[in-house]
Amino acid sequence: MDDLKLVDVYVDEYLRDESGHTALRSMLNIINATGGKKVRPMVLLLAGRFGPRWPECRERLCKMGAAVEMIHTASLIHDDIVDDSPMRRKRRTVQSKFGKEMAVYAGDFVLSRIVYYLFKEASIEVGMLLAKTVESMCYGEIGQYARLYDTETTIEDYLSNIFGKTASLFVAACAIGAMESGCSEKTSMILRQVGEHIGYLFQLRDDLLNITSSSGREGKPVHCDLINGTYTMPILHALRHPSGGRLREVIHTIGSGTLVLRDIEKMGEEIQDILNSSRGIEFTREIIHNHAQQAKELLETLPKGPVRQGFLDILELLMGD
Amino acid sequence: MDDLKLVDVYVDEYLRDESGHTALRSMLNIINATGGKKVRPMVLLLAGRFGPRWPECRERLCKMGAAVEMIHTASLIHDDIVDDSPMRRKRRTVQSKFGKEMAVYAGDFVLSRIVYYLFKEASIEVGMLLAKTVESMCYGEIGQYARLYDTETTIEDYLSNIFGKTASLFVAACAIGAMESGCSEKTSMILRQVGEHIGYLFQLRDDLLNITSSSGREGKPVHCDLINGTYTMPILHALRHPSGGRLREVIHTIGSGTLVLRDIEKMGEEIQDILNSSRGIEFTREIIHNHAQQAKELLETLPKGPVRQGFLDILELLMGD
Repeated sequence: MDDLKLVDVYVDEYLRDESGHTALRSMLNIINATGGKKVRPMVLLLAGRFGPRWPECRERLCKMGAAVEMIHTASLIHDDIVDDSPMRRKRRTVQSKFGKEMAVYAGDFVLSRIVYYLFKEASIEVGMLLAKTVESMCYGEIGQYARLYDTETTIEDYLSNIFGKTASLFVAACAIGAMESGCSEKTSMILRQVGEHIGYLFQLRDDLLNITSSSGREGKPVHCDLINGTYTMPILHALRHPSGGRLREVIHTIGSGTLVLRDIEKMGEEIQDILNSSRGIEFTREIIHNHAQQAKELLETLPKGPVRQGFLDILELLMGD
Repeated sequence: MDDLKLVDVYVDEYLRDESGHTALRSMLNIINATGGKKVRPMVLLLAGRFGPRWPECRERLCKMGAAVEMIHTASLIHDDIVDDSPMRRKRRTVQSKFGKEMAVYAGDFVLSRIVYYLFKEASIEVGMLLAKTVESMCYGEIGQYARLYDTETTIEDYLSNIFGKTASLFVAACAIGAMESGCSEKTSMILRQVGEHIGYLFQLRDDLLNITSSSGREGKPVHCDLINGTYTMPILHALRHPSGGRLREVIHTIGSGTLVLRDIEKMGEEIQDILNSSRGIEFTREIIHNHAQQAKELLETLPKGPVRQGFLDILELLMGD
């Protein structure tokens, strides 16, 4: 998709540093080099093809796609401070290389740039929507942090946190695409719902892979969510199962912080057994599958064609690994 | 000044939390309770009385004053993470009470709220200006952090950092007042220059008081800048004096981190002696005085009256303690 390249061009432009600060430049190099799959701009660009203003709105869609991707980037920089992550996308994080302090300002810098360009483009509606989205993202992160190491976290708490953390930006990406291309309110609502399902399944899969993948993904060690006190869907489900008591014990032992890596690896096997017997993993997979199914059904109410197919392809992409 | 109360009303409104997150609510209570002197909105409101659109623009000035004060608040929340400050305005900081992690998101939350309301007010020009100001603030903080524990920091580096950290927001406050009230380009330029002088003298005085005040101010211990590796004007001046060699030694000993509080207190006396013999404090006082003098002279080119007097009063207020 050529438009994704244009998104990159705008990200580069928006992140350009003219201050000559050596430290900032090095940080921006890391930030830009760690470019991910750009799923959010992809979704935005596709949503923007359902409206009558496409293709005139194409350039603006790319600009807004860049803004959405940069919000994601800024949130990763700030999240890595909180998670104390050494690696991200197989590279060292800003905070691990330059310190938490620099990472705070690097994230703020990226945010200030997004805001500047949104005002410059006079994108009032998009600006309001994205400001509200960042607010939701803060709610999600604060909510998750407030529940750290809390085995009483409910599945509702967890879902509400991942809505804020992840789904809200996917909803916004769809809403912006619909808005800029002039979709009807009905189409816009369908696209926003599709975005919400994609957001949920995206985060649920990410959390699941942290448990099921045999080796660390993107430099993130297996079970690091659990070790860091974030209890995700398979764990929360297992805690409610008859074997939940044993899992609780394991979790408390891990939480005591007296274990070495070897002990945790050994526990990994036991956790796997508990998750197998409680069907925590299957349960999570079913929920993910349901979100994909609902997104598909919603898309099928929209006009058939390459755009709809593009959306279905993204779903496929996200469901594979 | 009644308008300052209206600024408070808008700050309250903009910070209102409807999410029901207990943790966020507690943080917002701290953030709001630590209300400072509101110097920045004061300056904005005064600048806004020089233009022909005053008093119609009064309400908007209060809203913009609230946005400027909130940017200052957000920057304090993020700065306290970096400085690891336990206290601010005689209260515990967000980061010391809720952790650095929460403070990252509390700052982001405040920023997202400002951006939302600026878009809602469709304040394109103000929005662009404030985004650029936050960018400058990041440059200032990153620049300061990059120079930590560096006795080769030049006075130019220091001044450039305090421009970003502090003066830029005062310039913005004056620019917004001028813009909203429809000042001529000439008046606007004078006001922006006044803002710059106020900003510099404000930060220079703040840094000086960290050295000269006998007891800790606002819970900030004496010489904590020095201990934390931030070398401010009196120190930088003294380092360039013949007695600079001894100061360098003292600084390196402090930087080694092996001292207890008692040693540092003893060193405090020696630092004071070095600063006296190098006239580092007098030199800084002269620069502060020069900024005040230049601000006064610029104000004297503007129409005489209560507004101009108000500005001169703020200068007096900032020069006293």
